[in-house]
Amino acid sequence: MSVPTTNTQRPATGSSWPSAAAAEVEILAILAEITDAHAARDAARLVAPYTADAVRYSLAPPLQQRPGTMVGDIEGVRRWLDTFDGPITIEYREPVVMVGGDVAFVHALTRMVATPAGSPDPFSLWFRTTLGLRRAEGTWSIAHEHSSTPFLMDGSFLAATDLEP
Amino acid sequence: MSVPTTNTQRPATGSSWPSAAAAEVEILAILAEITDAHAARDAARLVAPYTADAVRYSLAPPLQQRPGTMVGDIEGVRRWLDTFDGPITIEYREPVVMVGGDVAFVHALTRMVATPAGSPDPFSLWFRTTLGLRRAEGTWSIAHEHSSTPFLMDGSFLAATDLEP
Repeated sequence: MSVPTTNTQRPATGSSWPSAAAAEVEILAILAEITDAHAARDAARLVAPYTADAVRYSLAPPLQQRPGTMVGDIEGVRRWLDTFDGPITIEYREPVVMVGGDVAFVHALTRMVATPAGSPDPFSLWFRTTLGLRRAEGTWSIAHEHSSTPFLMDGSFLAATDLEP
Repeated sequence: MSVPTTNTQRPATGSSWPSAAAAEVEILAILAEITDAHAARDAARLVAPYTADAVRYSLAPPLQQRPGTMVGDIEGVRRWLDTFDGPITIEYREPVVMVGGDVAFVHALTRMVATPAGSPDPFSLWFRTTLGLRRAEGTWSIAHEHSSTPFLMDGSFLAATDLEP
């Protein structure tokens, strides 16, 4: 992990700088690791950044993922990976990171491109990602994840899966 | 706003306690205020807890609310309130608050009960809420909101609006 070391001038505000700036770099590295782990289809790397008690609100039901639900544990993530052929591309668009001490949150519009198992063509889906993070013993982990699309309020109740930023 | 003042014993961990405990009380008071403002159908009170540049990922499109979108500003919130008859009931189920310095996040399963304008009956909807907050000049504000339902991965792409915790 690379942490900026050259620009040590303290800005006018932000009492925890440069530690907050370093934390932001570390948190963006977690997003990069999640992207790489999807590309590599590596379930162990996909769950590694999360706390053991992370609360996940995922794209698919249930309301809240737990061990035994779709992506609530490493076995669930493996089964989820098996529903796709080939690499899964994740792109976080201009993530916004806010850090206070050992707590942070991030939000970003997110694009997923993947090919359902047995399908000839990939799909592209834009959704919204929010992460809540905690730092323990110097390491940031994801304590909360919220991923979603909006849904149409026209009476169809269809997920809005064709939106773009 | 009531802040605990009697129990000043410091726990074994948590370097920022009791300030973090006081912050949690203040943040839970914001959730209570949002609940009350929905019951009162008061658009000004509904937007007051947000920063001017808050980024909202709402139940309905677009991906991200901005001034001029459905609930991106006070006029949008007024129009949204007009789509319901009578009070709107919001219940946050066991919210989890994490505070670090001047940054915090909260997540909670959330129930909304409301009657669409002209409809004889209310609906009940469980969804997921995540808030990212910042404190400036002693006041917490919502800098980011993410509200959603999951959607069905059975090919129907229907929002899962009938889930319960």
